[in-house]
Amino acid sequence: MDRLKRNERIAALVKILTDNPNKLFSLNYFAKLLNAAKSTISEDIVIARNVFKELGLGQIETVPGAAGGVKYNSTVTPEESLDFLNRISKTLSDPGRIITGGFLYMADVVYNPGIAHSTGKILAGCFDKSSIQYVVTVETKGIPIALMTARAIGVPLVIARRDNKVTEGSTVNINFLSGSTGRIQTMSLSKRAMERGAGVLIIDDFMKAGGTARGMVDLMKEFDARVAGIGVMITTVRPEQKLVSDYVSLLYLEEVDENRGMVSLRPNTELLV
Amino acid sequence: MDRLKRNERIAALVKILTDNPNKLFSLNYFAKLLNAAKSTISEDIVIARNVFKELGLGQIETVPGAAGGVKYNSTVTPEESLDFLNRISKTLSDPGRIITGGFLYMADVVYNPGIAHSTGKILAGCFDKSSIQYVVTVETKGIPIALMTARAIGVPLVIARRDNKVTEGSTVNINFLSGSTGRIQTMSLSKRAMERGAGVLIIDDFMKAGGTARGMVDLMKEFDARVAGIGVMITTVRPEQKLVSDYVSLLYLEEVDENRGMVSLRPNTELLV
Repeated sequence: MDRLKRNERIAALVKILTDNPNKLFSLNYFAKLLNAAKSTISEDIVIARNVFKELGLGQIETVPGAAGGVKYNSTVTPEESLDFLNRISKTLSDPGRIITGGFLYMADVVYNPGIAHSTGKILAGCFDKSSIQYVVTVETKGIPIALMTARAIGVPLVIARRDNKVTEGSTVNINFLSGSTGRIQTMSLSKRAMERGAGVLIIDDFMKAGGTARGMVDLMKEFDARVAGIGVMITTVRPEQKLVSDYVSLLYLEEVDENRGMVSLRPNTELLV
Repeated sequence: MDRLKRNERIAALVKILTDNPNKLFSLNYFAKLLNAAKSTISEDIVIARNVFKELGLGQIETVPGAAGGVKYNSTVTPEESLDFLNRISKTLSDPGRIITGGFLYMADVVYNPGIAHSTGKILAGCFDKSSIQYVVTVETKGIPIALMTARAIGVPLVIARRDNKVTEGSTVNINFLSGSTGRIQTMSLSKRAMERGAGVLIIDDFMKAGGTARGMVDLMKEFDARVAGIGVMITTVRPEQKLVSDYVSLLYLEEVDENRGMVSLRPNTELLV
C-alpha cells in the first residue's frame, strides 16, 4: 500500500472507531493498517478527538500503557439527548396512537433502527460501563434498544424468553408477578447465556409497575449476577411506587386519556445536568 | 465556530456518514455544519471516498442533482464477508453447542451486537436496497440481525408477534404450518405496522423447512406488500425442498450429529463472487 496522507488516515481511523463503539484498538493496529509510525497515528488521533469534542460527536479516548490504545465512546451531549427526547415525546404524544384500553402504540418508535441507536447511546451513557459485562432484556419490545445499548457499551446482549425453548438447552426459570395485570408470568434463560457472577445492565422499553424489571432482577440472582443498573426508555408516572428502585428512565409517560384523546409525555431532564 | 481544517472536516463527515448508513445528506448540510463552501465539502468527500475504497471500508456514494447529496453504503467486501462467515462457522461448529434433540445453541452468536452488525451489513448487500421500504421479521431470535439489516438499508424494522398483544391495537393474524414440527402456529402484526403496498425484505436467523419464512410471506400478502427478498443467516441443508424459494442464506448447516458430537457448517460461497 502507498503511504496514506493524514486526511486519509483520519478518515479510516474515524470510520473504524465509529463502527466499533467502546472497543479498544492498539496504536500498533492502526500503525500497521495505515502504514504509518505510531507517533503519527497518535497525532491523527488528537486531531480527530478535538473535532469530535468541538462538534459533540462523542469521545475518542486514549488509554495509556502497554495494554492501551484508542477507543470511541459514543457519549451523546446533554443538548443532543434533550433534543432527541423532546422529538420522541412529540412523536409519541400523537393522540392517533391511543389504543383501546388506554395503551399507546409505540412499536414503530421502539423498533426504529435510528431511534434505537440513539436511545441505546443515551442509556449507555447513564451507567458506569466498566461495571457491565452483559446487557440483559426480556423479549420482545425492548430488544432493539437493549441491542443498541449493548453495542454502545461493547458487551454481549442476553435475552430472557417468556417460555422455555428447545433451542436454549437447560434453562433457569423464574415466576414473577406482573405489577400491571396482577398475573403470574414466567421468564426463562439458558444456563449457557451468562458467566456466573457478572455485572449486568437491565434494559427495557417500557415500565409501569416494574414487575418485569423485578423479574429480571430475580432472574439475575439465579446467575449470581450483580445488577449494575436498570435503564428504561419510558416509565409511567403512576403507580409512583415501582417494584424496583434505582432505575433510570429517559421519558416519563404522564397520561393517556382515551376519552379526551390526550397523551402527555416528558423527558427526564434530571439526566441532562 | 472557527474554520475547520480539512483533516477535521473529514473526521466529522466520516463520523456522521458512518453513524447513518444509507441516509442521504445534502452538501448544504455539511457546508453549514462544518462552515465551509460546498465545493470544499465535495473535495473532502472525494478524499474520504477513495480511502474507504482502498481499505474496503464501505462505499461513500454521491447522488447528483438538486435532491442529491452524499451517503454511506455499508457494503462489505467479498473477502471480509468470507472471513467473517468462516469465523462464525468455526464458532458454531463447537460440539459443546449441541443440545439434546440435535439442536445447536446459537443465542450468544445471533444476539451478539458486533456479529449482528456484520451479518446485517452483509445481508443488506445481498438485495436491491431501492426496492425495500421495510425489513420484516418475526420474534424473537432474528430480531438483532433484522434490526442491523434495517439499519444498514436505512429503513424501519417491523416485528411480527407470535400472538396478539393488547399494545398492538388491531392486528392481522395468520396461521402457518411449521415445516419442522408440523404444528399450526400463529403470527400477528398490527395493522398500523406498515403502509400497504410496500416493498419488504424478510429476515430471519435460522431456516429449516421454511415454514416461518412462508408464514411471513403470507402475512405480507395481507398488507399487499411486495416481497423484495428473503435473507437468512443460517439454513439447514436438509430438507432440500423448502417452503419458500428465492431466499439467500449466508451459512449452511450441513449436520448436527449428537452421537458423534459433530457439527458441520459452511459459508455460502456463491454470495461472494
